[in-house]
Amino acid sequence: MTAGYRPPGVADRGTAIVLLSGGLDSATVLAIAHAEGWACRALTLRYGQRHSREIEAAKRLARAMDLPEHRRVSLDLAAWGGSSLTGDGEVPHGGVTAEAIPSTYVPARNTVLLSLALAWAEAIGAQAIFLGVSAVDYSGYPDCRPEFIAAFQQLANVATKVGLAGRAPVLRAPLINKSKAETIRWGAALGVDYALTWSCYDPTPAGRPCGDCDSCRLRAKGFADAGMVDPLVSAD
Amino acid sequence: MTAGYRPPGVADRGTAIVLLSGGLDSATVLAIAHAEGWACRALTLRYGQRHSREIEAAKRLARAMDLPEHRRVSLDLAAWGGSSLTGDGEVPHGGVTAEAIPSTYVPARNTVLLSLALAWAEAIGAQAIFLGVSAVDYSGYPDCRPEFIAAFQQLANVATKVGLAGRAPVLRAPLINKSKAETIRWGAALGVDYALTWSCYDPTPAGRPCGDCDSCRLRAKGFADAGMVDPLVSAD
Repeated sequence: MTAGYRPPGVADRGTAIVLLSGGLDSATVLAIAHAEGWACRALTLRYGQRHSREIEAAKRLARAMDLPEHRRVSLDLAAWGGSSLTGDGEVPHGGVTAEAIPSTYVPARNTVLLSLALAWAEAIGAQAIFLGVSAVDYSGYPDCRPEFIAAFQQLANVATKVGLAGRAPVLRAPLINKSKAETIRWGAALGVDYALTWSCYDPTPAGRPCGDCDSCRLRAKGFADAGMVDPLVSAD
Repeated sequence: MTAGYRPPGVADRGTAIVLLSGGLDSATVLAIAHAEGWACRALTLRYGQRHSREIEAAKRLARAMDLPEHRRVSLDLAAWGGSSLTGDGEVPHGGVTAEAIPSTYVPARNTVLLSLALAWAEAIGAQAIFLGVSAVDYSGYPDCRPEFIAAFQQLANVATKVGLAGRAPVLRAPLINKSKAETIRWGAALGVDYALTWSCYDPTPAGRPCGDCDSCRLRAKGFADAGMVDPLVSAD
């Protein structure tokens, strides 16, 4: 995961916090921020996911990028339920349904994530926060839309000491209008090794992607539309 | 802490999450929400404070109110520093300074707190979130102002599944325009036992309020202006 990246030590845009879930979107965003010249630090939330594969993927990505810091914060959002991703009911299989917002939605997850990123950014004086949300080829989650990003930016401007000084961290969601295929092509051009990423909501007992949850289906469609082979699946 | 309260079982306004720090403001807000008829559940954040006296006070208050649920979430905001309250430097003593925002400000603390409350509220279908911030007799924290509350409400409206359905939890900050003395008088009228609360940022080795930090000074001024004796201090 080095081809196309700026070499370490030439970061000159300032410091950026990158929300790194371990999925392909956040891996791509990390590469984009790095290529823009930001000194990146990654933040991963253990929020009570059913499995730890995502967290392991985030660690691999942070190591591959030689990040100076990768914070993993534990916060048990599963404790109060409300999502099949954290154990309430079954993860849906068999294709994206007509349901507007599926059961895998985790209440206010991205709000919590951005709040933590904002706190860390303010504490260390970071100028930007990158996150990998997209409102195209997505699951309909409300906190993946441009309206959400704009509302959080407005909040950051008034909620913080740096915001009052006109220096709130800038939220950057470079994939917000990108399809999964466009994301994959962009990341591939930047040298992202997608074999290091993880997307499946509900891995098999053997620890492989199920191939059938919303997230696996969106990923497979993305690689197909991009005319590329998914190195994670082809490793089977 | 029962005089003036509605008896259990008659809550008819719905469910409210109350952010309960253990200080006198949040104790008062809990009493207000209860008196309005909300079925209250309390949320307390252990965020790496220097001492656990606040948390113990929150537990006492929740027990005194016979709440059906008091969630205590641990999240180490101290890990990334940025505040004297979580161990970066000394807590200031000797009176409120001319500095606009003192070192006790914890980066984005109320944003993190409200995010967690929003997540829990959405998970259980709570209709309101109460918090005890005030922009009068306060320490100048940006996340205690009406602008902050309004921005977070706007965020909650677009960030959540319930928000998209027009049913985002309503943020309630009933003390936002109240002086400390008004707060204390209101709480006393509702039967709040302020001996159960804790305000000091920097307790003495003997576990008593220091009497000299910003929080002790604001509390002392509040009781003096209200013409009342602080039962916590008078217990010395």
